[in-house]
Amino acid sequence: MSEASRITVIGSVAFDTIETPSGRADDELGGAAAHFAVAASFFAPVSLIAPIGDDFPRASRQYLESRGIDCSGLEQRPGRTFRWHGRYHEDMNKRDTVHLDLGVFAGFTPRLDAAARHSPYVFLGTIDPTLQRDVLAQLDGPHLVGLDTMTHWIEETRTPLEALLGRIDLLVINDEEVRLLARETNVVRAARRILALGAKRVLIKRGEYGAILFSADSVFAVPAFPLEQVFDPTGAGDTFAGGLMGHLAATGDADDANLRRAIVYGTVLASFVVEDFGGRRMRTLTRDDVEQRYRQFVALTAF
Amino acid sequence: MSEASRITVIGSVAFDTIETPSGRADDELGGAAAHFAVAASFFAPVSLIAPIGDDFPRASRQYLESRGIDCSGLEQRPGRTFRWHGRYHEDMNKRDTVHLDLGVFAGFTPRLDAAARHSPYVFLGTIDPTLQRDVLAQLDGPHLVGLDTMTHWIEETRTPLEALLGRIDLLVINDEEVRLLARETNVVRAARRILALGAKRVLIKRGEYGAILFSADSVFAVPAFPLEQVFDPTGAGDTFAGGLMGHLAATGDADDANLRRAIVYGTVLASFVVEDFGGRRMRTLTRDDVEQRYRQFVALTAF
Repeated sequence: MSEASRITVIGSVAFDTIETPSGRADDELGGAAAHFAVAASFFAPVSLIAPIGDDFPRASRQYLESRGIDCSGLEQRPGRTFRWHGRYHEDMNKRDTVHLDLGVFAGFTPRLDAAARHSPYVFLGTIDPTLQRDVLAQLDGPHLVGLDTMTHWIEETRTPLEALLGRIDLLVINDEEVRLLARETNVVRAARRILALGAKRVLIKRGEYGAILFSADSVFAVPAFPLEQVFDPTGAGDTFAGGLMGHLAATGDADDANLRRAIVYGTVLASFVVEDFGGRRMRTLTRDDVEQRYRQFVALTAF
Repeated sequence: MSEASRITVIGSVAFDTIETPSGRADDELGGAAAHFAVAASFFAPVSLIAPIGDDFPRASRQYLESRGIDCSGLEQRPGRTFRWHGRYHEDMNKRDTVHLDLGVFAGFTPRLDAAARHSPYVFLGTIDPTLQRDVLAQLDGPHLVGLDTMTHWIEETRTPLEALLGRIDLLVINDEEVRLLARETNVVRAARRILALGAKRVLIKRGEYGAILFSADSVFAVPAFPLEQVFDPTGAGDTFAGGLMGHLAATGDADDANLRRAIVYGTVLASFVVEDFGGRRMRTLTRDDVEQRYRQFVALTAF
């Protein structure tokens, strides 16, 4: 672990109330950046930059720190931590937001300390693209920058978002987002268009259908790990991104072959997080579990 | 090719009128068994058992025969050949049936001649399960029997369909059908349930998301070949099944490793057929094209 490079992730830490066909959990530690950080921490040291309210429990911080996550970038501000309440349909690809309270996340202005600024691996979680740009301006020669976004930012802040793409090594977004961002229904053409806008690589998350990576000269497609039960999909995409960035930081190698392995590690991590509410499964997960499922994934896809 | 075993396919031959966002084609030679037969003919000799009307053009028969397909099982009867008119949405995973005329297909009673009865590889296309059972009764010790079905038969004739499963080596159905047949929304549990009902293997077609194979002791997942343009998805699933059964018949080997390669060949054939209306693309496709895309698929999925 001491050989692995640092990853800095900027985004949201939240408390999620989650209803699925299997049950309900209240106030689970979540948020995209927290899910990402926990997944990445299986591979590399992580700095987590996110706002938290004055209601943030000591136990949650202690858990994150127990995973080797540097929490000095958790900026505590007066008010409530971001809260989300979602309800999944029987078809868990669909969910409704029952309640959303941005709390202190609404006024988030990311400030990076020295360790975070010099981090070789940086993941810009889904926040306002102008804030993502401000984070980029604080970085000191990062080795690899990943970026996530969402429908809201594509629709409301397209111009600053598009202006960022030329500085991004790895855009990590889902099917719907890539189509919207590229204004193109075919996923392959959509990815090509985003490469033309300047992103070096586009990685499309397809949930239970896997992922597909596009770069100028290579395409890599991978299925998801088939599961008998998807208990709660919350955080799966963020965990996927965290696992893959973690493997890249641990190996210090972002060539195509290693990025493919990183995507499989991301797939494996995501396959665990959906086995229980929120991020609960990650609390008992071991690196051996990860390696074992990686080998199962090799067997799953070999021909 | 002379070494390959014969495949017999029983099902529909039709003329399709197809509207897609890209345009329209009228009276294209189609039907599930025809698409299957053409794809399989790239690998092995095929006997095609289907009813045709007295309107069936000589040129269509000549085309099928030019592909090495034995058309002696095309039973010409008074009336019209099956006709289907479909219209795809902008999202080509959705389509509406504008018009359907079963014609002579409505009274189809499959009768197999000696060559077909002794065929080692048999594919029971989507017809009434009681007719599929009657075909099974005519067979003389087939090596491998595949079966397709559809929502209509699952809903209307579940009992005879379930009774068939114990005699099927490879059930080839789509996501929606496997969930309906198993009465189970999770695809993995659905497949396990159908294995418990007696099918030796269940292969689930997921269209642009690939395919997944379940047997008692193995799971194989594969993405689809990513395409910049899906011109017309008509016949893709049947072409997939034909390509995979073709490879099995050509190699005479249905072990897990070879079945996986067969699924990739099916994926490759399907990726071609969607490049033009109906089965047009297959008229110019060469075996070299197939092998080249197979190698591209290896590169697409290697990690």
